[in-house]
Amino acid sequence: MVSGMVEVLGLIAGFFTTVAFIPQALKSWKSKSSKDMSWGWIILVTIGVFLWLVYGILANDVPVIAANFFTELFALSVLFAKLKFG
Amino acid sequence: MVSGMVEVLGLIAGFFTTVAFIPQALKSWKSKSSKDMSWGWIILVTIGVFLWLVYGILANDVPVIAANFFTELFALSVLFAKLKFG
Repeated sequence: MVSGMVEVLGLIAGFFTTVAFIPQALKSWKSKSSKDMSWGWIILVTIGVFLWLVYGILANDVPVIAANFFTELFALSVLFAKLKFG
Repeated sequence: MVSGMVEVLGLIAGFFTTVAFIPQALKSWKSKSSKDMSWGWIILVTIGVFLWLVYGILANDVPVIAANFFTELFALSVLFAKLKFG
């Protein structure tokens, strides 16, 4: 558990890496194309973000939990777009 | 600072989210195309991963530092591919 300013920085970092997936998910679903997206990338990210979420819970790290919970939702949306459109 | 098994889990999580960027960077540079990749995604990820790295250093969190140092290198490679190929 970290506190104060450091935790705020973690929350800001998490805001960036989480929000990043929103324009990507919107683009994939709107353009109905994600061929430039690597299967390896999206599969490894989906697994990895889930593991970060478990890590955050076990390490009692609020920024890591918050960021990875929402990132996982958006990553799954990008994964489903890739499954649907290739 | 977390210890033992939890830290190992964090290192595994970091391994996944970091290694994920390797197939993406290779694909972008090989295919010379990253039009399906959102500008918003790559810019926000590059900024966010840098902030995670600073957070990891300040929070003395080894898995967060290790993962984000290498992820930043690979994210920059994907960003440069996007700048070059669009």
